[in-house]
Amino acid sequence: MISKNQIKLIKSLGQKKARQQQGLFIVEGIKGITEFLKSEYVLKHLYTTKLIFDAPQGLISEISELDLKKISALKNPNTALAIFEIPTVKPSQNTGLIVALDDVRDPGNLGTIIRLCDWYGIKDLVCSYNTVDCFNTKVVQATMGSLTRVNVQYVDLESYVEAHNTDIFGTFLEGENIYTTTLPRQGIIILGNEANGISERIEAKVNRKVTIPQFGTIKETESLNVANATAILLSEFKRRTIEM
Amino acid sequence: MISKNQIKLIKSLGQKKARQQQGLFIVEGIKGITEFLKSEYVLKHLYTTKLIFDAPQGLISEISELDLKKISALKNPNTALAIFEIPTVKPSQNTGLIVALDDVRDPGNLGTIIRLCDWYGIKDLVCSYNTVDCFNTKVVQATMGSLTRVNVQYVDLESYVEAHNTDIFGTFLEGENIYTTTLPRQGIIILGNEANGISERIEAKVNRKVTIPQFGTIKETESLNVANATAILLSEFKRRTIEM
Repeated sequence: MISKNQIKLIKSLGQKKARQQQGLFIVEGIKGITEFLKSEYVLKHLYTTKLIFDAPQGLISEISELDLKKISALKNPNTALAIFEIPTVKPSQNTGLIVALDDVRDPGNLGTIIRLCDWYGIKDLVCSYNTVDCFNTKVVQATMGSLTRVNVQYVDLESYVEAHNTDIFGTFLEGENIYTTTLPRQGIIILGNEANGISERIEAKVNRKVTIPQFGTIKETESLNVANATAILLSEFKRRTIEM
Repeated sequence: MISKNQIKLIKSLGQKKARQQQGLFIVEGIKGITEFLKSEYVLKHLYTTKLIFDAPQGLISEISELDLKKISALKNPNTALAIFEIPTVKPSQNTGLIVALDDVRDPGNLGTIIRLCDWYGIKDLVCSYNTVDCFNTKVVQATMGSLTRVNVQYVDLESYVEAHNTDIFGTFLEGENIYTTTLPRQGIIILGNEANGISERIEAKVNRKVTIPQFGTIKETESLNVANATAILLSEFKRRTIEM
């Protein structure tokens, strides 16, 4: 059984404001929940239709499929929904490459970028305040558990970049060809908003403008999706670190 | 004004069966419609709230915002909706690299992959019959006009691959490291289904198993999103063709 108050709390966590007030967020599905349970994240409560999880008994409630449907944000809820505590942010480690997002708004894009950071061993993802919240349920879903391994922090991006005396990369239509220019092992790689790219304020701080060249004969493709651009950039930066 | 029968026809084109029976599909929004009007695609009819398009007068109807809302599949319709004819498929040119999809199901992924093919100058995209229809409204929307520049065909993928005596690449967890192995200028690159990867039938035809190596210290990230994997592969294949 699940009380009306519990349902109300869970539903409210769909909103950023409530997540911040409560310091809680939601993970749905067996795979995601299992990854978060294995991580340093602290479980608040787990609602499940099957008792298959390794978590303290007092924190687990067995509920009906019907109740799960009531609390889930998914069309087809998958076995369980868990509430975890939002952790305190660790300061960025400032070693290696840092990815920074300037107002990325689409939850799917942020989720995929977190997955890419995890794949390419990027420890720190820095987001402007207007970037979509990484504890948004759709983002958590899209990260496939990678959120447990990437340190995400929200900052005033302009001040953050200013405070770092390093190579600041940004992708533009004009810039050094990423395939032929030198790429260091350290620096900040900035990706911009889906519609507007990197804002002027931040562009002024970029000291390494780079471009992903087009190979098509007709150069009319406007731009790459921001997650794909991240994939190509991280691939190219990390490829250079392989001892051949 | 728009008649009930016209509304019914347009609504029906949300379904693959109706699209195939009628030989028609839908493009929404100014940018997408403009790109299709510039291309070889044949306009059937254009419904718009503003007469800003360069198309034969007999094929344009000015309609109200309310009528546009009735026929649009978008939450926020953008000025116009056009019906175009589905073109007859050109046989693949069999030169250069061909991208082949083995049951990619998500419209957003297919749309993004078409955009990537356009960016990297891939002329032919070959899809298994169970891959999502490229004239699906969401796919057309996600391609941002790139569909006008990439030749997409649906085939029995097993027979197609069998008929091609060339390098057949597929991504797997184990395989040659794509960053260090040789990559030719010709061949077929196969990407698999979102949940199951490349099917066993098709895997049996792959003669160049490759892998995108993980750089994270904890190798728990299950896989990359199929569109991101496509981005990384095309980037790496095409990079090699640059004269340094």
